[in-house]
Amino acid sequence: MEIALAIDIGGTLTKTGLVDGSGEILDKRVFSTEADKPFEHFLERLSAEVDRMTDATDAEIVGIGVGAPNVNAISGMIEHAPNLDWGEKVPLLDSIEERFGKKTWVANDANATALGELVYGLGQGMKNFVVLTLGTGLGSGIIVNGQLLIGSHGLAGEIGHVSIDPDGRQCKCGLRGCLETYASVTGLKRTVFEMMAEMKDDSVLRGISFMDMTGEQIAEAALKGDLIALKAFADAADRLGDSMANTVAHLDPEAIILTGGLSKAGSLLADPVRVSMEKHLFTPYRNRVKVLISNSSDLSSIHGPAALAWNGLRNGN
Amino acid sequence: MEIALAIDIGGTLTKTGLVDGSGEILDKRVFSTEADKPFEHFLERLSAEVDRMTDATDAEIVGIGVGAPNVNAISGMIEHAPNLDWGEKVPLLDSIEERFGKKTWVANDANATALGELVYGLGQGMKNFVVLTLGTGLGSGIIVNGQLLIGSHGLAGEIGHVSIDPDGRQCKCGLRGCLETYASVTGLKRTVFEMMAEMKDDSVLRGISFMDMTGEQIAEAALKGDLIALKAFADAADRLGDSMANTVAHLDPEAIILTGGLSKAGSLLADPVRVSMEKHLFTPYRNRVKVLISNSSDLSSIHGPAALAWNGLRNGN
Repeated sequence: MEIALAIDIGGTLTKTGLVDGSGEILDKRVFSTEADKPFEHFLERLSAEVDRMTDATDAEIVGIGVGAPNVNAISGMIEHAPNLDWGEKVPLLDSIEERFGKKTWVANDANATALGELVYGLGQGMKNFVVLTLGTGLGSGIIVNGQLLIGSHGLAGEIGHVSIDPDGRQCKCGLRGCLETYASVTGLKRTVFEMMAEMKDDSVLRGISFMDMTGEQIAEAALKGDLIALKAFADAADRLGDSMANTVAHLDPEAIILTGGLSKAGSLLADPVRVSMEKHLFTPYRNRVKVLISNSSDLSSIHGPAALAWNGLRNGN
Repeated sequence: MEIALAIDIGGTLTKTGLVDGSGEILDKRVFSTEADKPFEHFLERLSAEVDRMTDATDAEIVGIGVGAPNVNAISGMIEHAPNLDWGEKVPLLDSIEERFGKKTWVANDANATALGELVYGLGQGMKNFVVLTLGTGLGSGIIVNGQLLIGSHGLAGEIGHVSIDPDGRQCKCGLRGCLETYASVTGLKRTVFEMMAEMKDDSVLRGISFMDMTGEQIAEAALKGDLIALKAFADAADRLGDSMANTVAHLDPEAIILTGGLSKAGSLLADPVRVSMEKHLFTPYRNRVKVLISNSSDLSSIHGPAALAWNGLRNGN
C-alpha cells in the first residue's frame, strides 16, 4: 500500500504520521521539538521516530508532506521563525528530501492545516475560508477560490503578525502589538499575568509559574469561574474577534476556522469571539461569516501535511 | 466597430466612456453624481450623457461595465453604500441592463479599478497585488493568482473599513476608526481640521470651510511648506502604511498600487507611506513589496469598468 509521511513541526511538539490516500492515519507519533537545540539534532530524532513507524508496516512511503512555522512555500526554507532557534534560514525541503530520499512538499504549518481542513476537514465544499491556528503562536492559512493562497513571495497568511496595537506587547518577531501576543496560548498566558498584576482576586493560577502554565490550566480555571482566567479569555476573544473582522474586510470568507491548543476551550472562546467579530464587522458582512472550531484532534493535525503530500502527488508537481 | 460602455460611479463624480477592445478611450464624459438625490434621477442623467456620446459615433455598444461603491458582484446590487443616499439596496445590474438593453457586468468600483490595473495598467504581468483607491472614501480591490478576488458573498476587498483604532473617528458605515476616516481625501480633511484645532500655526487652510476644502488645496499647501498640511499628510501616510503592513500579512502581494484623488500628491504621500509600511512589516516581507502610484488619469479611470465588460465579453459569462 502507498502512504504519505506527514510531519507537523510545532514550536513545542512535532507530530508525525503515516496517512493513506483516503486520509486514514495508520500510525502516528509525537515528540518534543526541542527547538532550542540545533536543527541537525531535530533531524536525527525525527529519523528515529520515522524508523520506528516504518519498521512496523509493509506500506511504502511515496511522498512526504511537512508543515512547519514560517516556511516559505517557494524557497522551501524556514525563514526568520521567531519560535524556532534554528537560525535565520533553514533548508527544510532539501534536508527532508535528502534525509528520507522521497519527494517532499513543505508549507507554513498553518497553511498546511488550512489545506487539511479543505481536503479532510470542515472546509470540504467551501471555496473561501481562513484557518487560524491558536497554539504557541498564531498561524494562519487562507483558501481562496478553492486553493491555498501562497502569495507572491511564498509568504501569504501571517495574520499572527497583524499589529492590533502600535504600542502593544513585544513580539518575538521584533514588532509590537502583533495579534499573536494576545490571541494564542502564550498571549493568553501573558494576559493572565497582566491580570494577576492588576487584579486583587484569588486565583489558582497564582500558584503556577509563567514557564509551567498551560492553556489547559487557564481554560480549566475559567470553567470553574476563576475571575482572572475568565477576564483573560474575554480579552483574548475580544481582540481576536476584532482582528477577524479586519480579515473579513479583506477576504470575505465563508468561515473562519479556529484550531490549535487555545481552540480546545470551545465555546468559552468561540462564543465571545463571534460576538466581538460581529460587533466590529462592516455592515454588509454581518451574520454571514461562520466562526467554527475545528474538530481535528491532536492526532488529525497531521492531516494538513498529509494533504500537502497527496495534493502534490496527485497534481504531479 | 464594437465598443464597451464604461461607467464609473463615484461618491462625487460619475465618469463614463466608450472604450474599444484594446483599451483605447474613444469618448468620455464626467458629471456630478448628485448622490443625495434619488437613484432614478441619476439614471436619467446617465442616459442623457450616454446618448450624447453614442449620437456622435457609429460604433456599436456590445457590453456595459459598471463600477460603483459597495457593489456586490454576486447579487449585482449596491448594498449599504455609506457615500450614496440611494437606499439600503440598489438593483444596479438590473437597472442598467433594462435602461440600455445591453449585457452588463458590475463590480465594486475599487474592484473594477484593480481589474483595470491588471488588464491595462501597472498590474500587467503581476499575479498578486492590491489596489487602494484614495478618494472620497477608501476602496480596495485584490488580485490573487491573476484573478479578481470576489469572496464568498461578493464582498471581498473592503479595506477602507478595516478598523485601525477601536476608539477612533466615526465612520459613515456606523463603525469607529475605519481606515478611510484617516486615509482618504475626506480623512485627510478631517485630520487638517484636527490639526487646526490642536496647533497654533498660521495656515492658508484656515480660510477654507470643511465643505469647500479639497485634497488638491491641502496638497498644494503642503508643497509650499504649510505645517498643518504637512502634519496632516504625515499622519495619513503613517496610518495608511501601518495598515498596509497588515494587508501584506494577509496576502503577500507583489505590489500595493495607490490611486484616486489623494494619490495625486505623488511622492508627498508615497514616500512616507513606504517608510511607515516597511517599519510595520513582519521581517520576511521587508523590502519585497512595492508601493506604486497608479499612472491612471481621470480619463483612464474608466479603464476599470471597461476591463469588466471586455473580460465578461471574452469569457462569455
